[in-house]
Amino acid sequence: MPIVQIELLEGRTYEQKKAMVEKVTEAIMETAGAARENISIIIREMNKENYATAGQLAVDKNK
Amino acid sequence: MPIVQIELLEGRTYEQKKAMVEKVTEAIMETAGAARENISIIIREMNKENYATAGQLAVDKNK
Amino acid sequence: MPIVQIELLEGRTYEQKKAMVEKVTEAIMETAGAARENISIIIREMNKENYATAGQLAVDKNK
Amino acid sequence: MPIVQIELLEGRTYEQKKAMVEKVTEAIMETAGAARENISIIIREMNKENYATAGQLAVDKNK
Amino acid sequence: MPIVQIELLEGRTYEQKKAMVEKVTEAIMETAGAARENISIIIREMNKENYATAGQLAVDKNK
Amino acid sequence: MPIVQIELLEGRTYEQKKAMVEKVTEAIMETAGAARENISIIIREMNKENYATAGQLAVDKNK
Repeated sequence: MPIVQIELLEGRTYEQKKAMVEKVTEAIMETAGAARENISIIIREMNKENYATAGQLAVDKNK
Repeated sequence: MPIVQIELLEGRTYEQKKAMVEKVTEAIMETAGAARENISIIIREMNKENYATAGQLAVDKNK
Repeated sequence: MPIVQIELLEGRTYEQKKAMVEKVTEAIMETAGAARENISIIIREMNKENYATAGQLAVDKNK
Repeated sequence: MPIVQIELLEGRTYEQKKAMVEKVTEAIMETAGAARENISIIIREMNKENYATAGQLAVDKNK
Repeated sequence: MPIVQIELLEGRTYEQKKAMVEKVTEAIMETAGAARENISIIIREMNKENYATAGQLAVDKNK
Repeated sequence: MPIVQIELLEGRTYEQKKAMVEKVTEAIMETAGAARENISIIIREMNKENYATAGQLAVDKNK
């Protein structure tokens, strides 16, 4: 605890994900006073056919 | 907001998913009074080895 | 299956939630071809101190 | 209901998952008094690039 | 890891929840080969107005 | 998108949550290249009877 789940569209590189978990962990340590080793982060990557806003799939945006 | 997460077994077509996010968005707009552009939908597809009911994996049903 | 999780800000009435689960169930039946009795819906209501967009808590919007 | 979501690192075999859903279902039946047919379990498998603890991706542990 | 999220209708006692997390942890240790200290369990309790099956809120069943 | 869900034990103040969503949003903007207005954060607070590690409820730790 805390447990963080980050849903985002697929396509980020390994380096981006590495930096993201480090920075998000620091952000939570600093503000919520949680210990570093207690923070878990799950990244869920989605393809554009599986995410929609305003009733439209991401894959159909800008067609 | 609202954020909708739909877990379902893999196998739906692009057209089915396209229609589903449109209809679910309309259903929520109509009943919860949310604005179209504020509604996000995440679809998570599972294979039959990763979903179980009554203690049995879906892949083992009807064997 | 399908399992739907709907996160939204607290404040909807019982009647709104009743209509929402009915309409969302119908939307999924019609488009994903799922049987009515197989569709589960979880509604999670959040207060404005527990939801943020663009780095700002909902409770702080329009202050 | 109950609905169980189990996040774990990928790599378990079909037999392990089969045994896990059976045992977890029994555990919940016994302790929460839920009926077997009402218990659903979703297994989400993650690769080591998508899970982090203490600010570090699992793929980078023990490098 | 593993991280378990259990959604269930409110009303279980402290003793039931205590026994449930113990038994579910053992079930996962035994079958998925996870270490006890690595297993986290989140219990989310819902009221009957926030859970629906077959398009009907749990609070409306058996009315 | 991205959508972040943060599960943590209840007890953080409004100020802590305000700072946390700001810092987590910045962390994700900087590393995943997401636009500020596209980042949503859900905070779910749990009481100690609803969270367990190593088979033991948080409320029972240090008894």
